Amino acid sequence: MTVTTPAAMLETLWAKQQIEELLYEYSFRLDMNQPEGLLELFVDDCEVVYAPNFGANGKEAYAKTLGGIGSYFKATSHHVSNVQVSLDGPDRATVKCVVYAMHRYQRERPDGIFWGQYHDEVVRVDGRWLFKRRELRAAAVENFHVKENIPLGRGV
Amino acid sequence: MTVTTPAAMLETLWAKQQIEELLYEYSFRLDMNQPEGLLELFVDDCEVVYAPNFGANGKEAYAKTLGGIGSYFKATSHHVSNVQVSLDGPDRATVKCVVYAMHRYQRERPDGIFWGQYHDEVVRVDGRWLFKRRELRAAAVENFHVKENIPLGRGV
Amino acid sequence: MTVTTPAAMLETLWAKQQIEELLYEYSFRLDMNQPEGLLELFVDDCEVVYAPNFGANGKEAYAKTLGGIGSYFKATSHHVSNVQVSLDGPDRATVKCVVYAMHRYQRERPDGIFWGQYHDEVVRVDGRWLFKRRELRAAAVENFHVKENIPLGRGV
Repeated sequence: MTVTTPAAMLETLWAKQQIEELLYEYSFRLDMNQPEGLLELFVDDCEVVYAPNFGANGKEAYAKTLGGIGSYFKATSHHVSNVQVSLDGPDRATVKCVVYAMHRYQRERPDGIFWGQYHDEVVRVDGRWLFKRRELRAAAVENFHVKENIPLGRGV
Repeated sequence: MTVTTPAAMLETLWAKQQIEELLYEYSFRLDMNQPEGLLELFVDDCEVVYAPNFGANGKEAYAKTLGGIGSYFKATSHHVSNVQVSLDGPDRATVKCVVYAMHRYQRERPDGIFWGQYHDEVVRVDGRWLFKRRELRAAAVENFHVKENIPLGRGV
Repeated sequence: MTVTTPAAMLETLWAKQQIEELLYEYSFRLDMNQPEGLLELFVDDCEVVYAPNFGANGKEAYAKTLGGIGSYFKATSHHVSNVQVSLDGPDRATVKCVVYAMHRYQRERPDGIFWGQYHDEVVRVDGRWLFKRRELRAAAVENFHVKENIPLGRGV
């Protein structure tokens, strides 16, 4: 969307700020082990793709995916930056960002490090921005528990 | 605060941008070893809580806390992201963010890595946003010189 | 520049947002190994300073510098945050930010980690913000292929 008027500029900046907030709140609730809080950030027919064989279709399936956070991780820390929002309409946006994530496991094993990107589709429902689709792609990993990840699709 | 008018939206975005700037300038001055510059970012009756037994009440005490940066660290790098600002009034806000911090020591020892969150109270004084209270909480650490840290308070 | 009117505030926020976008798009295209796309983010008479003996003057020289990304790195991940924009006029700005960069090499060797800052001069040409000058300074490195780096110039 081309933005030309001051009113449109303000609406665009406002939407981007609220979408950033959604991304950061996701990380916060994940690191705080609040699975119910995480679910609230997604629409009912959401799609979550963490890896080729790891994800969920719909909120009910996603709730099960999130169930193991507390028993699997002693701590995680998700550092999200480089947020780029592309508004596809007043209530839809495509978003990409980078993530550095540290995982300390309950089991005795080295910390797992993940470097990569989130690629999201977000929608505004009743004034609140929510995740419609979230996909995680890996630039690289180290001692990470998920062995097969979606690649960035980097040019060669 | 519920934001409804364009004027309020603009004021909110402006405040958030300036508060982000405060957080980033703190990191910059810390990494550049500018203790006097750091002090200028705090109100006189500030409270700084870096760990259960490490912090300061008031600017004078904080100045002493900051005195050892140069002799203790060869370099630090503070990477702040996920900044979430909650305005509590026109001149007060509660802020949380995540921080990844690398510490290279003057002494021969491995780099200390800190993954965690800052939880801040900021106030606007004479048009400038300043720290009223800054608290550091750890998700995890590695080879870090501070052994006892404030936990995130993660759900279990 | 002192910003006083709502119109000026909006223009400033808008410019800052677009400059952030430029910085993030640089990282994205770098990590995606898109050298041609990277070049498009710079003005013709750009200056790029990655290290004391590593950089480029002008777009043609920079194109050669970028030629080796794909053959040298298996993957990179550039995490940019703490973006601080100082507008020097309607179409010029000085920018600093921090960067955490992971480099996985094609050759068998440990990942190279870079912690530091970008210091940029950006200009708006025909409505698009572009890099005029980009300089990389290191707080610290680990297993990094570039041995001599520009220091932060940290106070001692």
